[in-house]
Amino acid sequence: MKFVFGVDVGGTTIKIGLFNMDKKLILTDVIKTNKKAKGAFILKEIAQKIKQIMKEKLLIEENILGVGFGVPGPVVNNFVIWCPNIGWKDLYLEKEFIKELGFKTTIIATNDATAAAFGEFVYLKEEKNMAFLTLGTGVGGGLVIDGKIVEGSNGSAGEFGHLQVEYINPIKCSCGLYGCLETVASIRGINGLAENILKNNTLLTRLTLNNLNPREIFYYAKNDDIVALKIVETLGDYIAKAAAKIALSVDPEVIVVGGGISNAGSILTSVIKKSYKKYSYFGTRKLKFRLAKLKNDAGMYGESELIFQNQIKWR
Amino acid sequence: MKFVFGVDVGGTTIKIGLFNMDKKLILTDVIKTNKKAKGAFILKEIAQKIKQIMKEKLLIEENILGVGFGVPGPVVNNFVIWCPNIGWKDLYLEKEFIKELGFKTTIIATNDATAAAFGEFVYLKEEKNMAFLTLGTGVGGGLVIDGKIVEGSNGSAGEFGHLQVEYINPIKCSCGLYGCLETVASIRGINGLAENILKNNTLLTRLTLNNLNPREIFYYAKNDDIVALKIVETLGDYIAKAAAKIALSVDPEVIVVGGGISNAGSILTSVIKKSYKKYSYFGTRKLKFRLAKLKNDAGMYGESELIFQNQIKWR
Repeated sequence: MKFVFGVDVGGTTIKIGLFNMDKKLILTDVIKTNKKAKGAFILKEIAQKIKQIMKEKLLIEENILGVGFGVPGPVVNNFVIWCPNIGWKDLYLEKEFIKELGFKTTIIATNDATAAAFGEFVYLKEEKNMAFLTLGTGVGGGLVIDGKIVEGSNGSAGEFGHLQVEYINPIKCSCGLYGCLETVASIRGINGLAENILKNNTLLTRLTLNNLNPREIFYYAKNDDIVALKIVETLGDYIAKAAAKIALSVDPEVIVVGGGISNAGSILTSVIKKSYKKYSYFGTRKLKFRLAKLKNDAGMYGESELIFQNQIKWR
Repeated sequence: MKFVFGVDVGGTTIKIGLFNMDKKLILTDVIKTNKKAKGAFILKEIAQKIKQIMKEKLLIEENILGVGFGVPGPVVNNFVIWCPNIGWKDLYLEKEFIKELGFKTTIIATNDATAAAFGEFVYLKEEKNMAFLTLGTGVGGGLVIDGKIVEGSNGSAGEFGHLQVEYINPIKCSCGLYGCLETVASIRGINGLAENILKNNTLLTRLTLNNLNPREIFYYAKNDDIVALKIVETLGDYIAKAAAKIALSVDPEVIVVGGGISNAGSILTSVIKKSYKKYSYFGTRKLKFRLAKLKNDAGMYGESELIFQNQIKWR
């Protein structure tokens, strides 16, 4: 019997999933992300946890097909360029992790959003080309082309959060650019959008400036609040603009929308679809939009899948 | 001895190149594009020309490794979706061409700009990821990721000419959208840019409204004409904006600029580079810009290379 670990390294916690050869997630464990000493203990603590799980499940080295990692920063061919959140820089993850683990197995690391994209790609049984957009604290993304993840030359492929979508009154983004999708489609960005609309609003609405958050906004939008709906439509319009650009570059079959904001459900994809017609090039008008399904587990699924497919050999 | 044909199907002429196994172009022939009956005779005439060349070169069927095609429209897996210039629509090129040729050999067809991208990719010995931009009558493009051409789900990957780059005073594009790169970076687009700048110009310049064309504009820009230089810098700025979007999607190592306009030489890549810093996301700032080398032969090189690598099997 063989098993695969999927390890999703986040800024606060690290999720470790154990998958069987049916690609079923049979166990999840979580450890805190130890940010001390520029994250120098993180790989050791992951290795310890994995060895502990192996012990509990009576697994030996031969049972482990590999460990897939998703990390919060750009990665190219297992080389972690940097992860500002946790302190990693220029890390040969495979080599370092094998040292901590104490036995050889296949190690594949990629960017966390890329891993999540791949998880959704396999789970949704998408055929070939998919772009993934994750809307949460930030706006990230991932890219799968011809069934393979695309990291890019600097690990920045699929960084759709920094496509410019506002030109007239652009807000400065944390990345230094102006009018990025992230400035209007992250949690903070959506709240900002809502504020702007509410400030100039004269219509009746149940939204108030004091208590704005995406959950509230979507809730009222679904319940016929015209102002809340306008906010959601504006968000959809921005995402559609970004989608039109993605389509002209890679022409995917589908853009899958995930992250916390995607919990809003089908209202989100329907407002995107509505605006997409306006902005899209005729050759890419068939693009579909779908909601992500795996929620917070998408990363672990994608990371394990990279091992199942041994996708590093293809790069 | 084996040989490969690269066939570049254009709206006016069709170029047929014969390559030896050293990937050397040893013979080029040209026929006119027969647009009668929605292009129904084109494949027959190409097959006749190929058989004529084979006869002259004393080649038999066994000597032919394959025929690669580049066609002016979207293609997915050898299926030509449409080529408005020549009348083709929903064409199973492989099947139809084998019928005309009368013997079996490997046939691979792709979009002409994608083929040209691949030709430059191999010729310039680029490593992995490359985007190609071709500036001429229109603005097209192609994409190579991990050494493989990317067609996209509708054959529209690499359609960079329709990325929006002007938001304040966008011009309507032939595609129906506004402010596309093509509206400012095609031959006509550059002339339009120049007109706008000249109309509001009070500085001394050797350019006049009567005699505007890209060759003249670049010539004077290289010869210290401030107004001509401003036009070229504005062009570079627009291309840089498009490049920043391409980089956020696929993060290529290099963008290669080809097409007639690229005959301007290094002034073109240097104005693009200068503006690119302004628009680029920090993770993609290492992107390089290079001039295409193969000029009008890029398509034939790329088409033959698809056969040499039998790249269709990878898709």
